[in-house]
Amino acid sequence: MKAVRFFGHKDVRVVNDIERPVPKGDEVLLKIGGAGVCHSDLHIIDEGTVVGTVFTLGHENAGWIEEIGENVEGYKKGDAVLVYGPWGCGHCKPCQQSKENYCDHQSEQAYGGGLGLDGGMADYMLVPSSRLLVPIYDLDPVIAAPLTDAALTPYSAIKRSLPKLMADEYVVVIGVGGLGHVALQILREISGAEIIACDVTEDKLAFAKELGAAYVINSKDADAAEQIQKITGIKKAKVVLDFVGATSTIDLGTKVVSLDGDLTIVGLGGGHYQYSMNGLPFGVSMTNPYWGSRTELMEVVGLARQKKIHIEIEKHKLDEANEVYDRMRQGKIKGRAVLIP
Amino acid sequence: MKAVRFFGHKDVRVVNDIERPVPKGDEVLLKIGGAGVCHSDLHIIDEGTVVGTVFTLGHENAGWIEEIGENVEGYKKGDAVLVYGPWGCGHCKPCQQSKENYCDHQSEQAYGGGLGLDGGMADYMLVPSSRLLVPIYDLDPVIAAPLTDAALTPYSAIKRSLPKLMADEYVVVIGVGGLGHVALQILREISGAEIIACDVTEDKLAFAKELGAAYVINSKDADAAEQIQKITGIKKAKVVLDFVGATSTIDLGTKVVSLDGDLTIVGLGGGHYQYSMNGLPFGVSMTNPYWGSRTELMEVVGLARQKKIHIEIEKHKLDEANEVYDRMRQGKIKGRAVLIP
Amino acid sequence: MKAVRFFGHKDVRVVNDIERPVPKGDEVLLKIGGAGVCHSDLHIIDEGTVVGTVFTLGHENAGWIEEIGENVEGYKKGDAVLVYGPWGCGHCKPCQQSKENYCDHQSEQAYGGGLGLDGGMADYMLVPSSRLLVPIYDLDPVIAAPLTDAALTPYSAIKRSLPKLMADEYVVVIGVGGLGHVALQILREISGAEIIACDVTEDKLAFAKELGAAYVINSKDADAAEQIQKITGIKKAKVVLDFVGATSTIDLGTKVVSLDGDLTIVGLGGGHYQYSMNGLPFGVSMTNPYWGSRTELMEVVGLARQKKIHIEIEKHKLDEANEVYDRMRQGKIKGRAVLIP
Amino acid sequence: MKAVRFFGHKDVRVVNDIERPVPKGDEVLLKIGGAGVCHSDLHIIDEGTVVGTVFTLGHENAGWIEEIGENVEGYKKGDAVLVYGPWGCGHCKPCQQSKENYCDHQSEQAYGGGLGLDGGMADYMLVPSSRLLVPIYDLDPVIAAPLTDAALTPYSAIKRSLPKLMADEYVVVIGVGGLGHVALQILREISGAEIIACDVTEDKLAFAKELGAAYVINSKDADAAEQIQKITGIKKAKVVLDFVGATSTIDLGTKVVSLDGDLTIVGLGGGHYQYSMNGLPFGVSMTNPYWGSRTELMEVVGLARQKKIHIEIEKHKLDEANEVYDRMRQGKIKGRAVLIP
Repeated sequence: MKAVRFFGHKDVRVVNDIERPVPKGDEVLLKIGGAGVCHSDLHIIDEGTVVGTVFTLGHENAGWIEEIGENVEGYKKGDAVLVYGPWGCGHCKPCQQSKENYCDHQSEQAYGGGLGLDGGMADYMLVPSSRLLVPIYDLDPVIAAPLTDAALTPYSAIKRSLPKLMADEYVVVIGVGGLGHVALQILREISGAEIIACDVTEDKLAFAKELGAAYVINSKDADAAEQIQKITGIKKAKVVLDFVGATSTIDLGTKVVSLDGDLTIVGLGGGHYQYSMNGLPFGVSMTNPYWGSRTELMEVVGLARQKKIHIEIEKHKLDEANEVYDRMRQGKIKGRAVLIP
Repeated sequence: MKAVRFFGHKDVRVVNDIERPVPKGDEVLLKIGGAGVCHSDLHIIDEGTVVGTVFTLGHENAGWIEEIGENVEGYKKGDAVLVYGPWGCGHCKPCQQSKENYCDHQSEQAYGGGLGLDGGMADYMLVPSSRLLVPIYDLDPVIAAPLTDAALTPYSAIKRSLPKLMADEYVVVIGVGGLGHVALQILREISGAEIIACDVTEDKLAFAKELGAAYVINSKDADAAEQIQKITGIKKAKVVLDFVGATSTIDLGTKVVSLDGDLTIVGLGGGHYQYSMNGLPFGVSMTNPYWGSRTELMEVVGLARQKKIHIEIEKHKLDEANEVYDRMRQGKIKGRAVLIP
Repeated sequence: MKAVRFFGHKDVRVVNDIERPVPKGDEVLLKIGGAGVCHSDLHIIDEGTVVGTVFTLGHENAGWIEEIGENVEGYKKGDAVLVYGPWGCGHCKPCQQSKENYCDHQSEQAYGGGLGLDGGMADYMLVPSSRLLVPIYDLDPVIAAPLTDAALTPYSAIKRSLPKLMADEYVVVIGVGGLGHVALQILREISGAEIIACDVTEDKLAFAKELGAAYVINSKDADAAEQIQKITGIKKAKVVLDFVGATSTIDLGTKVVSLDGDLTIVGLGGGHYQYSMNGLPFGVSMTNPYWGSRTELMEVVGLARQKKIHIEIEKHKLDEANEVYDRMRQGKIKGRAVLIP
Repeated sequence: MKAVRFFGHKDVRVVNDIERPVPKGDEVLLKIGGAGVCHSDLHIIDEGTVVGTVFTLGHENAGWIEEIGENVEGYKKGDAVLVYGPWGCGHCKPCQQSKENYCDHQSEQAYGGGLGLDGGMADYMLVPSSRLLVPIYDLDPVIAAPLTDAALTPYSAIKRSLPKLMADEYVVVIGVGGLGHVALQILREISGAEIIACDVTEDKLAFAKELGAAYVINSKDADAAEQIQKITGIKKAKVVLDFVGATSTIDLGTKVVSLDGDLTIVGLGGGHYQYSMNGLPFGVSMTNPYWGSRTELMEVVGLARQKKIHIEIEKHKLDEANEVYDRMRQGKIKGRAVLIP
């Protein structure tokens, strides 16, 4: 079968000689409907964050069950499903709560399909356990694939702060890109908090307004923090969600977050912050979360099935993988690119 | 000044000879903008649930500060505010958390203005402490008055269940009346759960659809429970909010609520339920909540200021109080009636 | 191998002709260390709550892994484990959170080993999936077996109310028997709330004092509720845990539980309560919980490994099963009986 | 009356010419039973963190009500009470929830008695509102005074993490001093988590064992982090409470805290930490909390009244204030010093 393989530093090739896997035990073979192309693939390809192994890329995967191992229960051929991305040990306490993104053994093992193990940019994908599937019922796998990361990651970051996101509070969203534009929709749907969105282009800010932001601020403005404080008043923003994670955006977050608030840095922008006593307002929880849990993915599917969230999709063929990665390097992808076998 | 006074069983009179109070200490005198007319007034007037005392009616009050006692800080003449309804002792733990609706001393004392003490159906109202005020900023007091009960009560019932109201779950709302129609809007704004609304007229069901219900069921139908289960499937509804509280609606709730779900009976319909082992699904929390907390009222004001919720208003003069109560007895009030001095 | 089999109404026999199962796929064969004898077995045996099937009794099971199926990962021969009791579908949301006690499909299927499927009163037991195991490390399986129910059930009931069990509050525990005596220890260890224990014999009340109760009340006293209210004062008890569940104990609970409190009925005593508006204090959550989750069982194991809880054990042989059930019918078991192959 | 006054940088004097205040409105005059001497007083005295004002020191205050203003309800002469320390605006949302430690207006105003306004190192103290009192009933004010800070601060830090402090998890406490030794007792009483205590002297470590630590580690050891990881295994410590706050202790915390854990820095040791992507395990919440809420102080009083926590006390006269501060500068105070008028 065809697959988009990572062979090492900056070496991605589309090959045709991969044997179609046969599921055993609790394994499931998925006919891929769509595999999302994610910015973190470029960390693997261009920066070599995964080394010494050859594997099929693609960690945002959806499709239809093609074949099941002899021990699989509760699923049958043809079921439309998502593949939950972070694969944990399955036994530790976080895994037992479906939070495999925080598996106790994360430091000891490869993270999941497309992240060191074979992923979904292929005709078929072998999922190592049926526990890693999430049914999507009547949703189209092509459209649903990016839910597994581009929606799940902001969803989990938001859900963590939900008790603070009341309608008398402000939430600041920094970065209206792949994850940020979904974050705005999730906030609009499950929280009453008033949204202040920040980005650096007028396009993105206009887009943010369409998606539910009450206020938009250009974060390039030297006085962006003051502009935000003028909106929030002295109580500041109870929650800041930073989908960029650069030093400048973290800095902006620290200036506008309130006492006892949440400063959540989702973006992998490599920023730094010098933490010290009195640097942040007292009681602020500063966090760098990772992906989300499987039951949170079920909730994301619920939002998508009710058409409460929508991810912009560009469809491409597997053979176009390298072109798509190039366009991503140039910042030319609008929304999310999905490879379709 | 003019006031609508309760003199005893079925005896309400509009009088002109009440002296305008003078605030002392931490007291505040409010110029009333609007006083909501609530169905529970009829419990007082027609059923005599409060006896042996003469007082001004009106427990849904909003207005502008006219005068403050010498110890009041943080408020000044002209500020637009709501009056929080359930007045507790102010010192016990629930009161310290602004949950005066659950004051430890509730059984020992009158509940609040319009409920045994002088309320807001008058030109002016004396509020016994500035702690009982909630600022509404640019909101119109006439429109805002019903927020204090018709919005706060369903809001508090919903907030209690918020962790269960995820987008992959169903919530059943029984009764699309004064409180229920606000509940639908609150659910639409702060929860992803899919809404199934029940009422007995097609008008109300159509209204429910406008306000965000995904499904509507006529609860008079003999198979209403089966219709709901057909929608929810085997997992049933994680939360049921009953704004009627009749024996039949409680019964409906018990049939559609899920294992580990919430069955919350807000309506004062006088219904009964025979609780026994295995009667309800395991883990269901059955609750009869009362009003809401002051910080929840702040959150309700946040929803109203962002125009996320809207209460239908009929405006009337103080002199029309008895006519309005008559129309209420006949079920002719659309939305909420507000008396305006 | 030897096994204690349920053949139908009041027909339990110890047999020797059961073939030792062979685990396949994700199945695990356990060499039983101990199988707890539970009062709910008598519901099955004497009342016929499970019909039309023959199976090995025992739903409180612990032992050592003897053999694993070819797909089992993370476990090996000799590991000491508990068997989590309520077996769900494994795929629904509650199951994915390890709350198989509230599996969406509970009404459609047998509950678990010893409850319609083969349990642990035998030399060996086949566990259908490794996900149902909880490691106990250095704990002795004989002593640990009752943790799976006699400790997990009260633990889960208590954990549900933990945010209300602060050191300035009272908790009432009704019934100091098999579950209640463990509840007292759990409360002592993980909650600051002051404990009021109720039972009907002086022995049990003295035992309760040893286990951490600050006050003891004989619930046979006609004025038991008044005695409790004298201790708690007007704020009453924030949480009531009823491990009896008779009409009289539920009634006692309703009289002493506070506004916004929790009334949790764990005991299967078949009691009734006439629920109505104003019957219970406003805001009380009335719940009939069932067993606990697998991650809660991990926490229970943590308490036991730290020697913070202790269950009284009587050891018996498999052959003595019917004698043990007889002694249980006569109320003669002290603590928990465990059958040891 | 006599008072210990701060006149400016390193200038503290005991004077006799302060007029006894007279309470008006909602004010309360307290006859001081005890005023705790806190390390943060030295920040004021020696580092000049409060400038341009002269005031009576003492922010850990307890006593008996001597006189009440004409609007005070619910208190009477002779009642034994604590004075809640952080005085907020009283009206904002945090204040309405009794969390005046996170008052929206904290940056605009003096914090409380002994911290810019007149405190409790005097014969009498004027408390500006009865809402700032917490009754202690039968507790001795001399012993209870330090509860307001030395117990409330660790209590609030612990309560924030309570859902993570289950019996199958580890908690690391760094620093067994004034706050840390109370933290150990609170953890022992309200949490099942296994405690690992760190300090730099054998005395302190032995003391930690007495107070409930299961393991003690000398944090001066170069391999302290490795020693802790050897205890916790790969899952690490779910919660780290740092009561020192030096760069070295923050560094230790970052090495032993688990994925999705809490790293809470309570100590004002002036440490720094370079925050960056991947520096901390994913999902860790890093927080610098401040003091606690008034309802948390009620819970602390509950622990003390049940004799579940105990603070070591040294008693001194007001006239000895400067000697006591000197001994504190030299690290010679054992437990907590309390000045008694």
